[in-house]
Amino acid sequence: MKHDPQNDPQGKGGTALVLLSGGLDSAVTMAWMQAAGFACVAISFDYGQRHRHELQCAATIAKAMGAIEHRVVRIDLGAFGGSALTSNMAVPKDRDVEHANDIPVTYVPARNAVFLTMAMGLAEVLQARDLAIGVNALDYSGYPDCRPEFVQAFESLANLGTKAGVEAAQRGEKWFRVHTPLMHLTKADIVRLGVRLGVDMGATTSCYDPSKTGTPCGHCDACFLRAKGFEQAGVPDVRSAHTPSPVAR
Amino acid sequence: MKHDPQNDPQGKGGTALVLLSGGLDSAVTMAWMQAAGFACVAISFDYGQRHRHELQCAATIAKAMGAIEHRVVRIDLGAFGGSALTSNMAVPKDRDVEHANDIPVTYVPARNAVFLTMAMGLAEVLQARDLAIGVNALDYSGYPDCRPEFVQAFESLANLGTKAGVEAAQRGEKWFRVHTPLMHLTKADIVRLGVRLGVDMGATTSCYDPSKTGTPCGHCDACFLRAKGFEQAGVPDVRSAHTPSPVAR
Repeated sequence: MKHDPQNDPQGKGGTALVLLSGGLDSAVTMAWMQAAGFACVAISFDYGQRHRHELQCAATIAKAMGAIEHRVVRIDLGAFGGSALTSNMAVPKDRDVEHANDIPVTYVPARNAVFLTMAMGLAEVLQARDLAIGVNALDYSGYPDCRPEFVQAFESLANLGTKAGVEAAQRGEKWFRVHTPLMHLTKADIVRLGVRLGVDMGATTSCYDPSKTGTPCGHCDACFLRAKGFEQAGVPDVRSAHTPSPVAR
Repeated sequence: MKHDPQNDPQGKGGTALVLLSGGLDSAVTMAWMQAAGFACVAISFDYGQRHRHELQCAATIAKAMGAIEHRVVRIDLGAFGGSALTSNMAVPKDRDVEHANDIPVTYVPARNAVFLTMAMGLAEVLQARDLAIGVNALDYSGYPDCRPEFVQAFESLANLGTKAGVEAAQRGEKWFRVHTPLMHLTKADIVRLGVRLGVDMGATTSCYDPSKTGTPCGHCDACFLRAKGFEQAGVPDVRSAHTPSPVAR
């Protein structure tokens, strides 16, 4: 059924742009925004990622969760190289991710900054002021563009660098608000929140290096953190790397 | 002749990423950066602009000026709409641009933020720390993303949101520097600077709504400001809208 924001109390908070990767965190973020009263436009990026399977997951999730719209925007971050997620560089396997304190090679230069600025542009055209991104600083602090100070800097940029932001400032208001409901949650907290919000977590993917059909590798950082999160939350993961066969939902 | 930054004193400042649109301002910016000792990588964006002729000009200029490399990155800002430069919306003609104080419909939502974040990503991969953009707040203050406060906010974002920025901060250094040599110049100042730096300004284009062969319309804001700048500088413009026939250089 098509979601009609005009006739649905879900839309009372207005329209929000939600970055939806196809992963667990962004799906829970969208559910959180919907629960907070926002009608959500989902935006996904086809940026040359080797785990392109996540784009199919994003489309499935956006539809199942009743996003008003799902936009997929192509950006050729892969042309730059510099990351294991967009080049032939190997995805690290079986790392001791809990004790690593370096920025891993799965870091994609400028990724969240580019995603957020693109979402900001679309939000401005749609006259939306709310953006949401499922970044998380706690469980995995290796990525600089997942930290609160980065998100705050982006919010300043958005309000200074747009027509909507400048016009709102002239009225003494702030236009763009960037919501990061998962910022300070552990992966186990995110799993529990997903359960409470009724997210079909089996429809999400986390693996950095899945097979062509989406089977997770079970050995990359993302697989490890997902498995640990479900385990600590005491929730079975139908998409666990340990039960890699496709599970009917 | 291929530019070799290893054997050229021009490169002593290191490598800089210069946003090169094909217009006058960005060409003068690149010449300024070269004069300051930087070897320049030019980056242009194919963003669905109706004045695509500028991309041909950018390629010509990059080659003529000895850019180490010229990258053209596709980004589909046009898919969002919301601007006269990327949609069927009419480009305003014969406006009193000097006395207008609104943000014009030629504003492209998020454009400079997206361009700068993409340049930041490429710079990080190339291990370059210097970015340059030909924004200008004086002659034409209608665009929010051409103001000093926007550029400062972007510089903060870049240093907080990248691996290079975070690692430099750990050493007590600042990584990214955004150079805006034209920020406080009038268009006449820019023309004079271009003359001094030996820029082939006839190879640049300014018009928002040129013919398919690049002939400027002579009536949009950009044509007006260019003509006024050359006139005030007392410099003939071989690409003037008033002599629209192609001029051999």
